[in-house]
Amino acid sequence: MDKFYILTNSMKDRDLKVTGQIREYLDANGKEAIVRTEPLADGAALPEDVQCMIVLGGDGTMIQAARAAVEQEIPLLGVNLGTLGYLTEVEQKSLIPSLKLLLDGNYEIEERMMLRGSVYHGTHKAGSDLALNDIAINRTGSLRILSYHIYVNGSFLNSYSADGIIVSTPTGSTGYSLSAGGPIVDPKASLIMITPICPHTLNTRSIILSANDEITIELGEGRKRDEEAAEAAFDGENPIHIVTGDRIVIHQALRKTKIVKLSKRSFLEVLRRKMGADQPGR
Amino acid sequence: MDKFYILTNSMKDRDLKVTGQIREYLDANGKEAIVRTEPLADGAALPEDVQCMIVLGGDGTMIQAARAAVEQEIPLLGVNLGTLGYLTEVEQKSLIPSLKLLLDGNYEIEERMMLRGSVYHGTHKAGSDLALNDIAINRTGSLRILSYHIYVNGSFLNSYSADGIIVSTPTGSTGYSLSAGGPIVDPKASLIMITPICPHTLNTRSIILSANDEITIELGEGRKRDEEAAEAAFDGENPIHIVTGDRIVIHQALRKTKIVKLSKRSFLEVLRRKMGADQPGR
Amino acid sequence: MDKFYILTNSMKDRDLKVTGQIREYLDANGKEAIVRTEPLADGAALPEDVQCMIVLGGDGTMIQAARAAVEQEIPLLGVNLGTLGYLTEVEQKSLIPSLKLLLDGNYEIEERMMLRGSVYHGTHKAGSDLALNDIAINRTGSLRILSYHIYVNGSFLNSYSADGIIVSTPTGSTGYSLSAGGPIVDPKASLIMITPICPHTLNTRSIILSANDEITIELGEGRKRDEEAAEAAFDGENPIHIVTGDRIVIHQALRKTKIVKLSKRSFLEVLRRKMGADQPGR
Amino acid sequence: MDKFYILTNSMKDRDLKVTGQIREYLDANGKEAIVRTEPLADGAALPEDVQCMIVLGGDGTMIQAARAAVEQEIPLLGVNLGTLGYLTEVEQKSLIPSLKLLLDGNYEIEERMMLRGSVYHGTHKAGSDLALNDIAINRTGSLRILSYHIYVNGSFLNSYSADGIIVSTPTGSTGYSLSAGGPIVDPKASLIMITPICPHTLNTRSIILSANDEITIELGEGRKRDEEAAEAAFDGENPIHIVTGDRIVIHQALRKTKIVKLSKRSFLEVLRRKMGADQPGR
Repeated sequence: MDKFYILTNSMKDRDLKVTGQIREYLDANGKEAIVRTEPLADGAALPEDVQCMIVLGGDGTMIQAARAAVEQEIPLLGVNLGTLGYLTEVEQKSLIPSLKLLLDGNYEIEERMMLRGSVYHGTHKAGSDLALNDIAINRTGSLRILSYHIYVNGSFLNSYSADGIIVSTPTGSTGYSLSAGGPIVDPKASLIMITPICPHTLNTRSIILSANDEITIELGEGRKRDEEAAEAAFDGENPIHIVTGDRIVIHQALRKTKIVKLSKRSFLEVLRRKMGADQPGR
Repeated sequence: MDKFYILTNSMKDRDLKVTGQIREYLDANGKEAIVRTEPLADGAALPEDVQCMIVLGGDGTMIQAARAAVEQEIPLLGVNLGTLGYLTEVEQKSLIPSLKLLLDGNYEIEERMMLRGSVYHGTHKAGSDLALNDIAINRTGSLRILSYHIYVNGSFLNSYSADGIIVSTPTGSTGYSLSAGGPIVDPKASLIMITPICPHTLNTRSIILSANDEITIELGEGRKRDEEAAEAAFDGENPIHIVTGDRIVIHQALRKTKIVKLSKRSFLEVLRRKMGADQPGR
Repeated sequence: MDKFYILTNSMKDRDLKVTGQIREYLDANGKEAIVRTEPLADGAALPEDVQCMIVLGGDGTMIQAARAAVEQEIPLLGVNLGTLGYLTEVEQKSLIPSLKLLLDGNYEIEERMMLRGSVYHGTHKAGSDLALNDIAINRTGSLRILSYHIYVNGSFLNSYSADGIIVSTPTGSTGYSLSAGGPIVDPKASLIMITPICPHTLNTRSIILSANDEITIELGEGRKRDEEAAEAAFDGENPIHIVTGDRIVIHQALRKTKIVKLSKRSFLEVLRRKMGADQPGR
Repeated sequence: MDKFYILTNSMKDRDLKVTGQIREYLDANGKEAIVRTEPLADGAALPEDVQCMIVLGGDGTMIQAARAAVEQEIPLLGVNLGTLGYLTEVEQKSLIPSLKLLLDGNYEIEERMMLRGSVYHGTHKAGSDLALNDIAINRTGSLRILSYHIYVNGSFLNSYSADGIIVSTPTGSTGYSLSAGGPIVDPKASLIMITPICPHTLNTRSIILSANDEITIELGEGRKRDEEAAEAAFDGENPIHIVTGDRIVIHQALRKTKIVKLSKRSFLEVLRRKMGADQPGR
């Protein structure tokens, strides 16, 4: 690796101190580094020959970076500047030894599946986007109940009257899906998970499907048979507006996010440390 | 009882057939009856000397009626025109015998506690309203995480990063609270219940307090320490806009909703019939 | 208060150091103190004129003490020798100042409702006991599904195929009921809660009733219409054997447990501290 | 297919009427059929050259058959004699047309992963068995809390104080795992799921791992540091006794259960029909 792109969340590295340390280290080792301190909406701004993106921030910054980097399949190395994260690999205190491992080639690449969601208004494709964590269809505006019709590989599964529906990857299991009551999934597992948000039924369980299944969600009519509106959000961002009758078709994306792993620290270890704080018990 | 007010959900009694039957029966028995087929926003339109409101529709119509009738403490008799309800007492097929029981005085009045919520912007009281089911504080607009600080009788209890917070009565336990994972409560129990909506923690349990406790919810700052906006909805309606720093103070209302009970059919029987359909099991 | 009874969990005060400190302090202030370091099965061993029981251990020791002390309505002061407890009032580091408050009369008495459960084999009363936390009906022996029929005030509510059923007080909401998915209840609330253990249905919600309701649980037949056996445990102890057809009738006990409160530290503060550790979140 | 084995649950086909219909049809078509009406503990009683096992009963009978048939990899065709099942393919009313499809070769074979669990007492292997649904480690005898230490691929994950631990396959997601709060999994997904039973913590979520992960569960000490005893059950049967310090090592079994699929009716359709009854809602 010779050309690096440093993406910094400037809310978390306010004086760019850590960013500076990384740039200096790369300079001293004859590597090229481009620094960006503004959010990266997509991959258009990325030079073509970048070989590794170093991301400073938290899991949120990593998720944004993943969406930008996926087209060119640039591996991401996360440097954690906040609370313990699932996606960030390097803690600040071990920054320089970690960079040394990276430059020495002592790393592995872990692949994470992503979702592609395409919104159809009749036969017109109204939009399409990627998500590393989840695609959530949700009301906009004031509180009210929407109805969602779910199909799997073209067969009707179920209708929910609910606040919304989350479709998530294994990586996304610790995100919004967890808040809605979903299980915890090792990112090495291969699956797609559907979790209703506040469904108006006693059945609130997540439904877990094969990674190869295709899920279609159709927005139903309102309570008074009128047209309703909602939003499909991709990793909580880039919302696409949908109305009654629109469908969003979700399946595994062609490309995967590549994450640089320097240590043996696994998802399960991070999970254990997070659960370790969770023993209020009886 | 000599003077009746008939409130009809005209979506459910489209040709006013049931409404007409009731009016005829009351006429034939020398009773006065006023019919309204428009939603009733509050009690202003109600004549002062109404002694009983007959409500045609479902639980939703009953909840609206409750908010209008509470000031004058008018008892409500619900006639169910939809699926089995918790609040409606009379099924269509037993309409006339039920009206006979009512006119003969063969009924009891069941009281249901209500909540009063008052929104404060600093020391300014920005609004106040009643709820029979619940007061829900919820984001408006696109999906994003809000923070809520909860106080009970002035003491700090907990902060939630969540989509929202529901404070509900026993009557409201089968409403939005159930969707958010809360327990089922017999309306004769005396308590107030707090249930977070999609909290970003593994702790999603409802917290149940005494009916006399006072709950304060303060809207916190956004993720980037900016001002956030949300809405407090009363039984899902009449939203009051709130911003970061605003507080909503919730306690038992002075007045209770009065519901006419003609039969021995109890909440538990309705619950049992609803749960009876719920045996997918293993 | 002049006559004290010190009940020590000798697993937690192994060299009786804390027990000794308390006895010395009471001696020095001219008070009488009886020490017991063996578990107390019931109130038979308690002298009649004891005015306060000081309990050294954790919440488990307090629960045992409560069952023994309730007949004579002796107030309990808990000294915590383990992790933060809901029932123990005094931490070791503030032991002497707390005893001073007690002897000076600077305390309040908090009452906690208890449950009485009576087991009937036909019309024969096979046994009866008290619980401060919960009465749990549960299989004995190997894993298998039992059926339980629930009645409230004599009316049938529901049948569960389940591992067991927990009936709990507000105090018990942080015990076995919490493990089975139940909500958290302020002990000042007035209610009885039913929570199924691993029911074979998607409906796992707790059902909350008035404190005055009477709950009857009947053990059903086994899968092959044979006789089944189970156990009713009172605060996890003193099991009474039951077989198919036996009923256990549960209602609020006549007497309440009296707990000495020296500080303003409330249930909600303990809850907050326990929840404070519980923010793994997203 | 020329040689069939008919395994009948004689509780459900009491006069062997359906069994007789099947035998007659096979006879009339020149096929050999052996009938067994006693439970089949393992595969020892099965003739070597059986090409298909027809199983009459419910999902429970199918699970028992699966454990017996797996060694010889005999495909199973389930005939449902009870409520709608996930594993039984044929309804009674379409029995003869279904058998015709089978004899005409109009079927597919669906493979289901199984688990192998081996119990170690120190280095001694105390027992080993297979499960199609789940391996559950559970207390025996009276209610009390056990501690379980969980390792994944040799790394410590978490300890639970709980009634027990369920490790399940996708097929098992609609069994005991569902009762304990786990999600619903399409059997075509590839994963292993861990669900604690009544854990004494607010964290009750299932943990989902790759199908290739190896899970070790060690039984911990009792509350008083004494030796505890429990049982590992395989699909709810064939319990192996374990004591404190014993470990059970669980991984995907080498062989899979083969299920004959005659129709397009999928897991999702059965799930939908079961969920269809589950709309008590609000």
